[in-house]
Amino acid sequence: MKYNIIAIGDELLIGQVTDTNSGWIARHLSPYGWKLQSVQVVADDAVEIKRAIDIAFHQSDVVLMTGGLGPTKDDITKPTLCKYFGGKMVHDDEVARQVEWVVEQRHLKLNDYTRAQAMVPSSCRVIQNEVGTAPLMWFERDGKVLVSMPGVPFETETMMQRKVISQLLCHFNSDAAIEHHTMVVIGIIESLLAMKLDTFERELPGSIHLAYLPQGGYIKLRLTGMSDSADALAREMKVQVNKLHDILGDAIVCDEDKPLSAIVGDILRSKGLTLATAESCTGGNIAHEITSIAGSSDYFVGSVVSYATRVKTDELNVSQADVDEFTVVSEPVAIQMAEGVANLLKTDCSVATTGVAGPTGGDETNPVGTVWIAVHVKGKTRAVRKHYPGERVRVITRATIDSLLMLLEAINS
Amino acid sequence: MKYNIIAIGDELLIGQVTDTNSGWIARHLSPYGWKLQSVQVVADDAVEIKRAIDIAFHQSDVVLMTGGLGPTKDDITKPTLCKYFGGKMVHDDEVARQVEWVVEQRHLKLNDYTRAQAMVPSSCRVIQNEVGTAPLMWFERDGKVLVSMPGVPFETETMMQRKVISQLLCHFNSDAAIEHHTMVVIGIIESLLAMKLDTFERELPGSIHLAYLPQGGYIKLRLTGMSDSADALAREMKVQVNKLHDILGDAIVCDEDKPLSAIVGDILRSKGLTLATAESCTGGNIAHEITSIAGSSDYFVGSVVSYATRVKTDELNVSQADVDEFTVVSEPVAIQMAEGVANLLKTDCSVATTGVAGPTGGDETNPVGTVWIAVHVKGKTRAVRKHYPGERVRVITRATIDSLLMLLEAINS
Repeated sequence: MKYNIIAIGDELLIGQVTDTNSGWIARHLSPYGWKLQSVQVVADDAVEIKRAIDIAFHQSDVVLMTGGLGPTKDDITKPTLCKYFGGKMVHDDEVARQVEWVVEQRHLKLNDYTRAQAMVPSSCRVIQNEVGTAPLMWFERDGKVLVSMPGVPFETETMMQRKVISQLLCHFNSDAAIEHHTMVVIGIIESLLAMKLDTFERELPGSIHLAYLPQGGYIKLRLTGMSDSADALAREMKVQVNKLHDILGDAIVCDEDKPLSAIVGDILRSKGLTLATAESCTGGNIAHEITSIAGSSDYFVGSVVSYATRVKTDELNVSQADVDEFTVVSEPVAIQMAEGVANLLKTDCSVATTGVAGPTGGDETNPVGTVWIAVHVKGKTRAVRKHYPGERVRVITRATIDSLLMLLEAINS
Repeated sequence: MKYNIIAIGDELLIGQVTDTNSGWIARHLSPYGWKLQSVQVVADDAVEIKRAIDIAFHQSDVVLMTGGLGPTKDDITKPTLCKYFGGKMVHDDEVARQVEWVVEQRHLKLNDYTRAQAMVPSSCRVIQNEVGTAPLMWFERDGKVLVSMPGVPFETETMMQRKVISQLLCHFNSDAAIEHHTMVVIGIIESLLAMKLDTFERELPGSIHLAYLPQGGYIKLRLTGMSDSADALAREMKVQVNKLHDILGDAIVCDEDKPLSAIVGDILRSKGLTLATAESCTGGNIAHEITSIAGSSDYFVGSVVSYATRVKTDELNVSQADVDEFTVVSEPVAIQMAEGVANLLKTDCSVATTGVAGPTGGDETNPVGTVWIAVHVKGKTRAVRKHYPGERVRVITRATIDSLLMLLEAINS
C-alpha cells in the first residue's frame, strides 16, 4: 500500500522544530508493506494545506497528516479539512468528555481553548486521543482516506500504535510483502565498500535493492525486498544476506538496525564485562548514548565527567606533571583518565576523551577539533589522536561515535 | 523570496535517517527574508524526483535540493537532473582535481566510484564542494533556479555558508523584510498562556503573527513579521515584544531562541557560580546538554554519573541506610547525591537525578517514569518527585528539561 505524509506547521518551515513524526510513521508502517511515497512539509495556511492534500491524493490513496491541531490560534487545519471534505463544524460530546478527563489528569483547569478541541468537522469519524486534547480525525472520499493526527510526537506515536495502524490495515487489507534487512558495517569507507560490493550489486535480483547509509564514522547497509510472496522473498533475502557476510566477514558487526551503543552493550553483557567512562570534551555524551539503551545497568557502572582539569587530577588521578608537560589534551592524560576511572569505579573496561570541541580554545599543537580517545579493556590501554572538522556539536558527536567504535574493536578482539 | 526544498533519499522515507538539512537551510535563509514554501521528501527514483521538481517550480522560482549525490549506486539524481534540464553528462576536470584532493586529504585512494563524481550534466554550473567529493550543481531555466547539494549535513551546511547563500542573494537581489523574535516562557501551560494572550493576539497588526511552540516542559513564543519596510517592521516588532513582556513578566526567561542549557549557563556565568551534576537515570544527558554550549567550561566543573548504587554511596557519600530504608529512587538519595557531588567537585550549585527510566525496573512505590530531581544552590537543597509517561528516551529527555528548569528557577531567585 502506498501512502503520503503531510506535516503541518510554520515552526517546521523556519527550522525551529524538526519533523520526527514522518520517520517514526515510516518505520512503523513499513513492516506491513506500506510504502511512503513522499513527505510534504507545509505552513499553517489553508491554501497550502489544500494544495498539499491534492498533490498527495494524486500520488496515493492514503494521506497521514500530522500537526496543526493545537488549541492556539495559529492552527487552522480543522476548518480547512472541514471545507475540503464538506459538512460543518459540530460539537462532539465524547471528545469534550475526553478533553475534560485529560485536563483533570494533568491537574489543570478547562478553559475556552481546550474546550474548542471538542469542535470537529461533521464529515469525519473521530478517533479519541487518549493521551492529549486534540482529537484524531478519519476522513473518507472516493475510496481515499485521510487521517489527521496531532503534531506532538508522543501523542501521534501512542495513538498510531493503539488505534490508527490497526484501523488502516483493517481498512485496506493489504498483502504485498516487503522486507528490510539492515547491517552495521565498520572499518570500511563508503567508496571502498562500493567497490567490494560491485559484483554483488550487479547480481542482485530485481526485487531486492541495496542502499548505503553513511553514519559519520561507519556505514549501515540496507537490503530492501518487495514481492507478492512473503515466503519467496524471505528465502531470497536470506541468500543475499549470506552473500554479504561472505564478502564482508567481520566488518559486519550487527545484523540489525541497532545503535552502536546497543551493539557494544550486547557484547559487554555476553562477556560479563563492566564499563565506565571518563569524559572531558564529550561532556557526558558517551554515557548518555550508553544509558539510552534499556538494560544498560547490566554493564554500565558510571562516569566521571571531568570537565575542569582539577577533576581529572583529583578524582581520576591524572598526573599534574604530565598535564604541565604534555597539556591536558594529550596521550598520557587520556590514558590516565581511562585507567583512573576504571580504577575508581572498579570496572573491567573504560573509555576516556580529552579534546578541544571549540569554537575557541585551540592552539597550534591542538587545533579545535583535536580529540584524544583512550580505551582500557582488561588491563590494556590504547589511545588514538583524532581530528574532526566542523562545529562543536559535530566534534562531540564524532568523538562519541569513534569512542564506541574503538571500544567495540577492543572488546571484540 | 519564496523557495522550496526537495530532500532525496530512500533512507528518509523508511525513517532510518531524519532530514535535518531542511531545518538548517530554513534557519539560515529566513534572516534574508527568504520564505520556505514547502519541503518534499522523495525517494531515490527518477519519476518521483521529476514530479517533485515540477510541483516545486509550480510553487516558487527557487528549488534547493539535498541528497542523492553519493558515489554509490542507489543515487540517481545527477542523470535525472541532466534529463530534466537538457544536455549530456560530461567530465569536469576541476571536479576531478577537487575529488582527488579531498580523497588525498582523507588519506584514502581514488577509485572508480569517487572518480565518477567528476561526471556532471553539461547544463549546470558546478559549485566546487570544498569539503566532500560530490559537486554542487546550479541549474537555470526560464528565470527559475535549482541548486543540487549533497545529503551529508556537514557538506551542505559548509557549502551553503561558503557559497550558495551569497550566490542566491546576489542572483535574486531580494529586499522584502522579515523578522522573527522568539521568547522562552516557563511556568505557564499552553492553554493558560493562550488565554492570557487572547487580547494581545486579537490586537496584533496583520503584518505580525504569533506562534506557540511547546517544548515538552516549557514553551517558546515566536513573533514573525513581514513588511516592505525593514525600519517600520523593526519598530512594530519592538512594540509587540514590549507588550508581551508587560503581560508575561518573569515568565519570559529569554528573548532569544536559545536552548535552556544556554540560558542557565548565561545566568551562572553572570553570577560567577559553578555547577556540577550527579546523574543516575539521566545517565549524563544533563551534563551533555550543558557542555553542548560553547564556553560552558566557564561554569561547568564536571559530573558523576552514578548509574550503579555503589557509585552513589562510594563517590557521592549517599547513606547506605537511607538507600535501604527509602530505596534508591527517593528524596533523601536525590538530596544526598546533589550535596555529595557539590561537595566532591567543590561547586556552588548542583543538580541530581535518580529514577526509573524503564521499560523495566518499576514497582508499586516507584512505577516506570518516576524521577526524583534535587537542586542544590549555595547551601540550600530542594527535591521534587516527577512522573513521566512514555518510553525510556522520553523519560530521560523530560527529566533533563525539568532539571534545567528547576536549576534556572533556583539560581534566578
